[in-house]
Amino acid sequence: MKSIKFIFGILSFLLIGQSGLRAQYANQEQADKLNYTVEQAYETVQVKPVKGKKVKNVILMIGDGMGLTQISMAWVANQGKLNVDNFPYTGLARTYAGNKLITDSGAAGTAMATGQKTRYHSVGVDMDGNPLTSLTDLAHEKGLGTGVVVTCGLTDATPAAFCSNHADREQLEAIAAGYLNCNVDFIFGGGRTDFNKRSDERDLLKEMEERGYQLADSWADVEDYKGEKLFAVVDDGQLPLAKERGDVWQKAALKAIDELSKHKKGFFAMLEGSRIDDCGHWNDVPALMGEIFDFDQTIGKVLEWAEKDGETLVVVLADHETGGLTLLDGSIEAGQVEGHFSTGGHSGIVIPVFAYGPGASEFSGTYENTDVFRKIAELLKLQ
Amino acid sequence: MKSIKFIFGILSFLLIGQSGLRAQYANQEQADKLNYTVEQAYETVQVKPVKGKKVKNVILMIGDGMGLTQISMAWVANQGKLNVDNFPYTGLARTYAGNKLITDSGAAGTAMATGQKTRYHSVGVDMDGNPLTSLTDLAHEKGLGTGVVVTCGLTDATPAAFCSNHADREQLEAIAAGYLNCNVDFIFGGGRTDFNKRSDERDLLKEMEERGYQLADSWADVEDYKGEKLFAVVDDGQLPLAKERGDVWQKAALKAIDELSKHKKGFFAMLEGSRIDDCGHWNDVPALMGEIFDFDQTIGKVLEWAEKDGETLVVVLADHETGGLTLLDGSIEAGQVEGHFSTGGHSGIVIPVFAYGPGASEFSGTYENTDVFRKIAELLKLQ
Repeated sequence: MKSIKFIFGILSFLLIGQSGLRAQYANQEQADKLNYTVEQAYETVQVKPVKGKKVKNVILMIGDGMGLTQISMAWVANQGKLNVDNFPYTGLARTYAGNKLITDSGAAGTAMATGQKTRYHSVGVDMDGNPLTSLTDLAHEKGLGTGVVVTCGLTDATPAAFCSNHADREQLEAIAAGYLNCNVDFIFGGGRTDFNKRSDERDLLKEMEERGYQLADSWADVEDYKGEKLFAVVDDGQLPLAKERGDVWQKAALKAIDELSKHKKGFFAMLEGSRIDDCGHWNDVPALMGEIFDFDQTIGKVLEWAEKDGETLVVVLADHETGGLTLLDGSIEAGQVEGHFSTGGHSGIVIPVFAYGPGASEFSGTYENTDVFRKIAELLKLQ
Repeated sequence: MKSIKFIFGILSFLLIGQSGLRAQYANQEQADKLNYTVEQAYETVQVKPVKGKKVKNVILMIGDGMGLTQISMAWVANQGKLNVDNFPYTGLARTYAGNKLITDSGAAGTAMATGQKTRYHSVGVDMDGNPLTSLTDLAHEKGLGTGVVVTCGLTDATPAAFCSNHADREQLEAIAAGYLNCNVDFIFGGGRTDFNKRSDERDLLKEMEERGYQLADSWADVEDYKGEKLFAVVDDGQLPLAKERGDVWQKAALKAIDELSKHKKGFFAMLEGSRIDDCGHWNDVPALMGEIFDFDQTIGKVLEWAEKDGETLVVVLADHETGGLTLLDGSIEAGQVEGHFSTGGHSGIVIPVFAYGPGASEFSGTYENTDVFRKIAELLKLQ
C-alpha cells in the first residue's frame, strides 16, 4: 500500500506541480480547503482562577459547530496555544434533539436557552410547538441585564432560540416579529431584510424603536450608543467571514459586556461565533480557522474582563459539531494542519464545555445540553 | 444533490437488494462495518460521589484509541447509557508526541507512564533513548502494590511503556526481556511467544518464575493464584476480540484489584482495553462497539469497587483517537449507529479524561498527557 501511495504522490506532484499535495485530493481547490498554515499566530492571555463564589453575571459563548476536533486543530494552527486553555473546568454535553439523534442549531439552541429538548429545526418552543421561557426572559424578570451578540442573522436558529419562538426555524419573518416581545437589552447581529424587507411590509426596525430600542446599523452607531436598549442590525444577511469582518464582533461583544455590567443585579449575555458552523458545512479548514481564531481572541478579552470582575461565570461550548472533522496531520511549530471532513452536515459527537469563574466546577462531568440551562438558572437564582 | 443521492439510493437498492444500504457504501461488507445495532443493551451502575480526600489507590484505565466519538457512539449503541456517565469530573488531554503531532501508543503511553514526551514509537525512554522511571516503578519504591492488565500482548506499546524501556516498540523480544526488571506485582495479558519462542532461545517465563512470579497461562490459573506476584500470559499473541474473549479481561481486572488491595500502603493499577484501537484501524464499527462495551462494563465494576473502598481514584482515558471516527446518524431508542472513518491510522484530536473518587477534580480542564503522570504521582505522593 505504501509504495502505491508513493507512486501516486510522485504522479500527483508531476501532474499538478505542487509538492505536498496528496494523491487523495481531487484537485488543488480541495487541497487548499483541507490544509492551513498560520501566517502569524496570536498571543493568548493567562488569567488566574477566581476565588469568590458569588455568580452575579453569566457570559455564555457558543461556537456554532465547534466540536473538539475544531478546537484541537485551531490549537495546533495557532502554534500550540489558545485562550480556551485557561478554563480550569471542562465538561461534555450531549446534543441530540427531541426527535432526532443528529441535532441542528435550532433544537440545540433551544435546549441551552430553555432547558427542554425539542424537535429538529424548532426554536424556543417545546415538542408540541408551545413557546418556552428562555434564560434571557428569566434573567430579565429578575432584573438582570440581557444581551445577544452574534455574527449570523438575528433570525438564525441560535439567537432565535434565545429571543423568539417558532416550530420552524425557516420562518424567518415570523421569527423576526418575535423580537418585538423579547426581553433582551443589547442585541447585535445581521439579518436586516427579515425586519425591513418583509412580505407583510411592516418595518420591524421602526417598531423596535417604538419599543424603546436605540437602532444601530453599523459598528460606529454601536460605539456611540448611549440609550438603555440597543437593537443593532449591521448587515442585510449574516456578517461577513472573519477575514472581511475584522474585529467588529469582538468589539460588539465587549461593548455589550461593558453596557450590561451597569445593571446592578448583574447580567446574562449570549455571544455566538455563528459562522464557525458555515465553514464546517463548506468543509473549509482555512475559513474555519479564521472563525475560531476570532472566537478565541474574543474569549481572551472576555476572560480578562471576568478575571477583573470576579463575579462572572464564563461558559464556552458548542451547540453541535459540524463536518465530522478529523485532524489528520500537522505541525505545532509551523502552525500547520491537515483536516478531513466526513460530512457536509452535523455529527453526533458530544461537545466540550469550558467554564471559568464562580460556579465553574458545576460544568465538569457529562450531561445533557438542557443541563446547561439548568446550571445557569440555578447559579443566577433565576428559578 | 439530494435527487442524485436518491437515484443512487434506488439503484443501490435494486442492484444490491438491501434497503437501508446507502449509495456511498462500496459494498455490503463496507456497510456492515460502518453500521451497528445492539442486540441487547446492558444495564449500567450508578455510583455516588466519594466524600473523603485521601488517595490510597489509583486505577488508571486506558481505552486504546478511544476518542470522544467512540464514546459518543457507544452511548447511543447501548441505548443512551454507559458506565462512564458516572464520572463527576472530565478533562481533556493533548496527545502529541515529542517529535510528531499524531502520536502512537508508545509515545502516548510513555507520556502517561513517565511524564515525558518522547519519540513516536518509543516506549519508556526519553527523546535520547534513555530509560525512564514509570508510575509502576515509583509506586513500587513507595511500597504500593502494582498491576498491569491488558487485552494485547504484554510487549505491545501501552503495557511496554509501564513495564519496559526501548526506543523502538517493534523490538518485541528486547521489550519482553525488560519485564525481568519491572516492578509490577500483578501482570496479565498476551504475547507469550515473545517470552518463550525467542531467537535467543531464552525462556523468559521460566526466568520470571525464578524472580518470584507465579506463572499462569489461562484464566483458571489466575483465579486460583495465591502467590505474591503473578505473571499471567494467557495467549500467544493478543487476546481475542470481546466476542470470543468473553469477560476474561473483566475478571482479571477485578482479580488484580482484589489482590493488590491487600497491600496496606495502597496500589497503582493500569488496566487497558487494548483492542479498541485495532477496531479503529480496521474501520470496523461493530467490533469497536464490542470492545468499548467490554471496557465500559469493566468500568462499572471498578466504580462499584471504588465506591465501596472510598480511597480509590479511578481515571479513564485514551492514549489517542484511532480512525478519525464520526457519528453520522443513529437512534438511541434502537441502539443503532452509523459511523464514518477518515483514516486507517490515528488522529490528533485531544482525548477525554474521566475521573472519580478522591482527587478527581484535579483531572478537569485541558492539559498535556504528561500531566496525567504528574497528577497521579502527586496524589499518591510518589515523588
